Formats: sequence, structure tokens, C-alpha cells
Amino acid sequence: MAGGAEKRNPCEARAAAPKNTPMTDPTLERYRQSIDNIDAALVFILAERFKVTQAVGRYKAEAQLPPADPGREEAQIERLRGLAEQAQLDPEFSEKFLRFIIDEVIRHHEKAQRT
Amino acid sequence: MAGGAEKRNPCEARAAAPKNTPMTDPTLERYRQSIDNIDAALVFILAERFKVTQAVGRYKAEAQLPPADPGREEAQIERLRGLAEQAQLDPEFSEKFLRFIIDEVIRHHEKAQRT
Repeated sequence: MAGGAEKRNPCEARAAAPKNTPMTDPTLERYRQSIDNIDAALVFILAERFKVTQAVGRYKAEAQLPPADPGREEAQIERLRGLAEQAQLDPEFSEKFLRFIIDEVIRHHEKAQRT
Repeated sequence: MAGGAEKRNPCEARAAAPKNTPMTDPTLERYRQSIDNIDAALVFILAERFKVTQAVGRYKAEAQLPPADPGREEAQIERLRGLAEQAQLDPEFSEKFLRFIIDEVIRHHEKAQRT
């Protein structure tokens, strides 16, 4: 954080920008770098999750297993709510999140069946 | 995979269970363990993301920064679409996913303002 841009006189900087803007605030910038790192991790791990569910789709078709398994979904939701509590994440959100992902998995399966 | 349960005569097994069920299929079980591991990682990393956005909310209020920054959101979407392509994840999904998360962040901020 020894960039030349931050060595200016703070009063001068204030004169140029009467209020910090989101674009120039160094503290906000650091938070945003963390958010961007986390988002990259989420994208790559989600890609991996879809690789597994695609393999499951292929395997279920080959092994003549039923495509849906309501008991499994319920168990997943219950487990994730428990993990969310440990992580101090809203359990309602963890359930909404899992349903969002499962909806996408179903869309993938439907698309795969059409092709 | 030398479990006793798998040493039965396959014809006998078929007689007992005419078709594999999702509950008893060992291949499916392995896939599901991977999905469960990935979901746990997602829950913990999402919890971390919300910790950062909550800190951002507090900081913006203190520093009198505007709560929304449309340019930032656009840049995030653009970046995630690029990462999704690298990860062979549907870029449309990465955008939908980010909006889903951002909606939750906005809900958090609104809730924080009310309390």
C-alpha cells in the first residue's frame, strides 16, 4: 500500500474530491478485493459442483435410477441449515441457496435430455 | 470397494431389489459425498462473504459513502462471466448467481437499517 497516489496531502485530496467516492476509497478497495477473491472461489467451486451433478445425471440414466429423490433433497437442506448455523449464516438463506442451485441442476438435466 | 454387501450374486441382489435405489447405490453415494463436501465449502465461504459485505455496510455508513455503486456491480458481473468461462460454468448462471447474492446483501443492509 505504498502507491504514489496515496502520498498526496490528504487536505489536497479532499479539495479535489470533497467526499470519498467508492472508486477512490482505499479501505473500501481492500474490502472489495476480498469480495472479488471470494467470488472467484465461489465460481470455481460451483463449476466443480455442476461437474459432479452432470456425472450424476449421466450415471442415473445409465443405471436406470429415478432422476429425483425427494428424501435426499430434504436431508441436504437439513444438513446445510446445521452448517449455516455453525458458520453464523442465516439458515433460511442456506436453504434458499440450495434450492437456487438445485433448480439450476434440474435445468441442466432437462437441457441434457433435449439434446 | 471390497465391501461384503457387494460380494452377493448379482442375480440374487436383483431378485431382492429389482432395481438399484438411490439410497443403496455405492457409486451414487460417492458422488453425493462429493456434493456434500462442496456444499459445506460453499456455506462456509458464503458466510465469509457476508461478513465482508456487513463490514462494508458499516464502513460505508461511517465514511458517508453512497450505499449503492452501479459501476461496481457491472464490473463484478463482467469479471465473473470471464471467470465462469475459464471454469466451464455457464456465464449466464454466474450472473444470475451474483445477482442472487447481491439481493441477499441488499436485504441484509435493509434489515440492518431497520434495527
